[in-house]
Amino acid sequence: MFSTTGHLFRVTTWGESHGPALGCTIDGCPAGMRLDVEAMQADMRRRRPGQSKLVTPRKEDDEVEILSGVFEGLTTGAPIQLVVWNRDVDSSKYLKWKDIYRPSHADYATEAKFGVRDWRGGGRASARETAARVAAGAVARQLLGERFGVEIVGWVEKVGALRAEVDPATVTRALVEAHPTRCPVPEVAAQMEALIQEVRADRDSIGGVVGCVVRGAVAGWGEPVFGKAEALLAGAMLSLPAAKGFESGAGFAGAEARGSALNDLFEPVESAAEEAPVGSRPPAVRTRTNHSGGIQGGITNGMPITMRVAFKPVATIPRAQATVDRRGAAAEILMTGRHDPCVVPRAVPLVEAMAALVLVDLALIQAARR
Amino acid sequence: MFSTTGHLFRVTTWGESHGPALGCTIDGCPAGMRLDVEAMQADMRRRRPGQSKLVTPRKEDDEVEILSGVFEGLTTGAPIQLVVWNRDVDSSKYLKWKDIYRPSHADYATEAKFGVRDWRGGGRASARETAARVAAGAVARQLLGERFGVEIVGWVEKVGALRAEVDPATVTRALVEAHPTRCPVPEVAAQMEALIQEVRADRDSIGGVVGCVVRGAVAGWGEPVFGKAEALLAGAMLSLPAAKGFESGAGFAGAEARGSALNDLFEPVESAAEEAPVGSRPPAVRTRTNHSGGIQGGITNGMPITMRVAFKPVATIPRAQATVDRRGAAAEILMTGRHDPCVVPRAVPLVEAMAALVLVDLALIQAARR
Amino acid sequence: MFSTTGHLFRVTTWGESHGPALGCTIDGCPAGMRLDVEAMQADMRRRRPGQSKLVTPRKEDDEVEILSGVFEGLTTGAPIQLVVWNRDVDSSKYLKWKDIYRPSHADYATEAKFGVRDWRGGGRASARETAARVAAGAVARQLLGERFGVEIVGWVEKVGALRAEVDPATVTRALVEAHPTRCPVPEVAAQMEALIQEVRADRDSIGGVVGCVVRGAVAGWGEPVFGKAEALLAGAMLSLPAAKGFESGAGFAGAEARGSALNDLFEPVESAAEEAPVGSRPPAVRTRTNHSGGIQGGITNGMPITMRVAFKPVATIPRAQATVDRRGAAAEILMTGRHDPCVVPRAVPLVEAMAALVLVDLALIQAARR
Amino acid sequence: MFSTTGHLFRVTTWGESHGPALGCTIDGCPAGMRLDVEAMQADMRRRRPGQSKLVTPRKEDDEVEILSGVFEGLTTGAPIQLVVWNRDVDSSKYLKWKDIYRPSHADYATEAKFGVRDWRGGGRASARETAARVAAGAVARQLLGERFGVEIVGWVEKVGALRAEVDPATVTRALVEAHPTRCPVPEVAAQMEALIQEVRADRDSIGGVVGCVVRGAVAGWGEPVFGKAEALLAGAMLSLPAAKGFESGAGFAGAEARGSALNDLFEPVESAAEEAPVGSRPPAVRTRTNHSGGIQGGITNGMPITMRVAFKPVATIPRAQATVDRRGAAAEILMTGRHDPCVVPRAVPLVEAMAALVLVDLALIQAARR
Repeated sequence: MFSTTGHLFRVTTWGESHGPALGCTIDGCPAGMRLDVEAMQADMRRRRPGQSKLVTPRKEDDEVEILSGVFEGLTTGAPIQLVVWNRDVDSSKYLKWKDIYRPSHADYATEAKFGVRDWRGGGRASARETAARVAAGAVARQLLGERFGVEIVGWVEKVGALRAEVDPATVTRALVEAHPTRCPVPEVAAQMEALIQEVRADRDSIGGVVGCVVRGAVAGWGEPVFGKAEALLAGAMLSLPAAKGFESGAGFAGAEARGSALNDLFEPVESAAEEAPVGSRPPAVRTRTNHSGGIQGGITNGMPITMRVAFKPVATIPRAQATVDRRGAAAEILMTGRHDPCVVPRAVPLVEAMAALVLVDLALIQAARR
Repeated sequence: MFSTTGHLFRVTTWGESHGPALGCTIDGCPAGMRLDVEAMQADMRRRRPGQSKLVTPRKEDDEVEILSGVFEGLTTGAPIQLVVWNRDVDSSKYLKWKDIYRPSHADYATEAKFGVRDWRGGGRASARETAARVAAGAVARQLLGERFGVEIVGWVEKVGALRAEVDPATVTRALVEAHPTRCPVPEVAAQMEALIQEVRADRDSIGGVVGCVVRGAVAGWGEPVFGKAEALLAGAMLSLPAAKGFESGAGFAGAEARGSALNDLFEPVESAAEEAPVGSRPPAVRTRTNHSGGIQGGITNGMPITMRVAFKPVATIPRAQATVDRRGAAAEILMTGRHDPCVVPRAVPLVEAMAALVLVDLALIQAARR
Repeated sequence: MFSTTGHLFRVTTWGESHGPALGCTIDGCPAGMRLDVEAMQADMRRRRPGQSKLVTPRKEDDEVEILSGVFEGLTTGAPIQLVVWNRDVDSSKYLKWKDIYRPSHADYATEAKFGVRDWRGGGRASARETAARVAAGAVARQLLGERFGVEIVGWVEKVGALRAEVDPATVTRALVEAHPTRCPVPEVAAQMEALIQEVRADRDSIGGVVGCVVRGAVAGWGEPVFGKAEALLAGAMLSLPAAKGFESGAGFAGAEARGSALNDLFEPVESAAEEAPVGSRPPAVRTRTNHSGGIQGGITNGMPITMRVAFKPVATIPRAQATVDRRGAAAEILMTGRHDPCVVPRAVPLVEAMAALVLVDLALIQAARR
Repeated sequence: MFSTTGHLFRVTTWGESHGPALGCTIDGCPAGMRLDVEAMQADMRRRRPGQSKLVTPRKEDDEVEILSGVFEGLTTGAPIQLVVWNRDVDSSKYLKWKDIYRPSHADYATEAKFGVRDWRGGGRASARETAARVAAGAVARQLLGERFGVEIVGWVEKVGALRAEVDPATVTRALVEAHPTRCPVPEVAAQMEALIQEVRADRDSIGGVVGCVVRGAVAGWGEPVFGKAEALLAGAMLSLPAAKGFESGAGFAGAEARGSALNDLFEPVESAAEEAPVGSRPPAVRTRTNHSGGIQGGITNGMPITMRVAFKPVATIPRAQATVDRRGAAAEILMTGRHDPCVVPRAVPLVEAMAALVLVDLALIQAARR
């Protein structure tokens, strides 16, 4: 609730876009892990503004400072405080919008909720808040990798109507990072880049879809009812700015299908039959297809976990738009400045981070469930 | 987590499909509300098996017994215990499947998680668990209606590829309930019914999509980061059995659009300008379009809240399917018995119930936020 | 919060004193444990009214019905619903007190809180609610015993000013149960019994203190800050009806002492030195004294965990008392009927149950902490 | 759990004694409150080391830096990040104790729990962590004062066996702050000061008791079962370093009393009778005595809330003590350096802060309970 997520691996984010800093507290991280700071910074750079000509030119190093919870390079089990200082802050242009509601932004709803609004750079509603999530996600990802053998890869699957066919079983981060769009299919990536440039030239923005796969998760993560793995993933993804849709496995396409086509038939894994007497741990199995996206009844089944997240186009476009001011009178707004024409390339590390936070939590919970 | 949802209006469900009973505890319901038991039973009947020829013929009255929390017809603020006794239980047919994993069911994942599995009727993973959610949702819905003026209407939007165009601003429960498919567009409803019958005759099942609107919610519900209204709704919906996708507002279609087309422009509401001096509560506004689905930055903006939930086809189909047994050996399973060929007509009250649980919680939280 | 306690082993109680039933849901109990129903009933009988001539003669079998979460005798990991039906209910005598506030009862505060009050038998504020805790505590205690080798023994240490000197290292349940006062020191037990009879004859009530020890807990349970083992134990104990004080280890007496007298000096445990190289798990140690009560910095240190809980005298006494009615006018009340003159003999299983709930939760959390 | 406390007013602390900084995140603070930074600093100075000759000479300004959640002086509803930088850090003396367990400190238990230990200044287990609580408590206290008319006053009631008789109805902060012992009874304060000096000269330490009263709380705060006001207060107080006992109202002394003496009889408040028709909000009442300490059935009754917290003597004493090293071998330790001979004068603001955190949370929850 509020600014905390997770049950045993708990992350609380704080900070505004134009405040002095933002960050997060990770509470519940197991002790004794050697924290890979460089891997964290690598993830930060993937989310960072100014990383390519496709994204906003705001200049932020986004270097993470660790204020607690790590001693002689090891996590201690104490809360880990991660801080990112805001450096390239210029609130002056926001001054003229402080008494007007930017269309499809959180301005109006925030003011209706709190009565008060930090109008500088969108305040708490800014996507900049997600920098803290990427930092926390990097810790979660490291834990998942080292202790549980889990790997997470996200990619851009769609920009507008352009769609890349990506195989979750084989896609790698190297393929994704090979192009600034983060689409791992080179020919589609090139088309996407052209489309983003065209949209920018047209003083517009465009939405897209991020795909993500989690490989290596054992069967048994996730809780049967409200803590279903898909429920937590869906909640985590829809907590990202501009996210408006989530699919697990076959998702909406699966809703058009028949059971005979969509059911994932189990098949034996070599040699499992001899090893496992009835009544012990279930044998390792696999499914011929993976329309379930690695989750059945809310619990992982050992197959790759697949998902998709839809992001709407960025609301800030450099065009005159009709709106209303704080007195309720009709007004017009023209927003210029530093903004992304398309958010999805930078959303890839966000989706990965949220997936990591959910799965590490479920993995730790499962440790207490048997 | 686990079997509890909600922060201030907390619902814990319990019970298995073929156990003696199932139910839920509602903890945190405000005191002094006259509980409308008949409205609760009406919702229960909409979820109930055997209600029409389109659904499973299992015979359950699904009458709710209230064991606590209500005194002289009023809620007392104490936990409300709602129990539904299982009457039409026949576990004998499940006996032959106890050592085999039904494809695309939770059997295998459950066993991997817990080592133990109540194989009777799917145990805890059965959709029967949702009866408790409908009962709890009826209480939430009543509270939303009486204290907050909120109304929730769900409908069947798709069965397979058949799609009904439904206007969230005007659809009513009467229109929805006029046809056993719960599709409010009569001609499409008739086609859907024919399709479901055809699928059943073909010993198959089919998926679909449920749409839902929440009307009357004021601006200001939902929390800015992890408690975004959409995040909680997405999590709630994906916790429903067979749910595999969620959209808020324009959802995945919006991800193909440009900002200039998708932005919801604010416009004044008559007479608001005179009433509200700058700095007080924001004026009432509306948006020309509602692609945001009533939620911006995770917070309600006063427009109707719209969403869609994708359900995969029911996994149980009366056909021989390949699978694996508990020793890990290849096997074949043929499931016969009482099952729905299409779950979405009965899923409508589930989606409404989950929406009610999320929104009542956010409404109560907001009471403490200013 | 509200009616739920615990983080991973979560217990939610429900039910009123004079409603049809009361019970609890245990969510998060590990799967695969053979539930010892007879041990649970044995604990229920120790709490039960009418068990001896020292306590209230209300006749309740307090037989626990298990409605979910157990299959073929084993816990399944699903929520365990435990129900106790109220049988010997007579609300008629409470009718005359429904518009008056019983002194030192929860009547007035409840009404101020909720506006509504179930006046029958004290409703939710009745000590009868603790029957559900004892049932849940029995499950927790069994888990602690079987998986963690932990044993919990409570006893009556004081009735009024009479005090028994009890050695936490050696006291057994058999010694405690040997006398209806549950004081394990026979000569003091006899004095206590006489005092309780005298107090009853004097139409009065009297308070007392329950001591409790947890033996066998390994070092490392409890969390360093807000989740300190003592903090959770204190919170759990003060949630019991009539509990007004808590001590861990030396408690208030320790506050009068000097560090040189109160510090618990560590000493080696035989053979530990050879086994444990520096940097691995710390060696087994013990302390010469145990003024810390087995908890240092909020974390168990492997020594017996000792605590004491103070209970005020039962508020219901069969004497005329001044009070105020619901209109705010001065009034007089004379309460007659079935009540305990001294609650502490029946409070012993309550203290043990709460200790079990706290410790099983900490043990499960620790499983996820390294 | 872990490092977070509170349900709606949620505080997460982080930071080690000898790390670069410590602090806390307050999540859920209502928006629109003008934050009184000077009042916060005043509380910080009361907890600060080096404030008088009775306490440790470590030199810390303990100035709080606000990194988020406040805009133009007003709380925004976003998380408030409060940071205190550690300046006077010298870890060198701890180096020699890194492989040995200080008696009655958290060293051994921490290492048993986490396998890793930040030995510099006690790390996370240091009482320095409470600086963050005092900062958070100052915000809570301000909210309680401005919105709810609540005032909190703590005092030193005992040092060793020296006890001051303090009237909770009339004690003021000015009286408390008039003497460095924080005992509001001058003659006892002088004796306490002499005792502390004597103990210090004797290279020893001594425990004590802090009393606290909350005045102005309306009836109706606190939840009937696990969220009883006393349960939350007890848990909060026992989460303080060195706290080993808690009493609400008459506490342990009340356990020796009879009901006829301890019951708090209600009496009318002038003019209440005319105002309140039966069935509406209950009339204002008062009790002749206040042995209940303002809480009945776990819910506030409108009378002053009184409590007492026992603190053991500081474990660090400048004497040679027997102990065990990390290999499990017998060893001797002599700790010299900067430490308090008696913690209770500095514990007064801690007890007040924890009381404020609990009560503001209950007040906000109650807003959602009717």
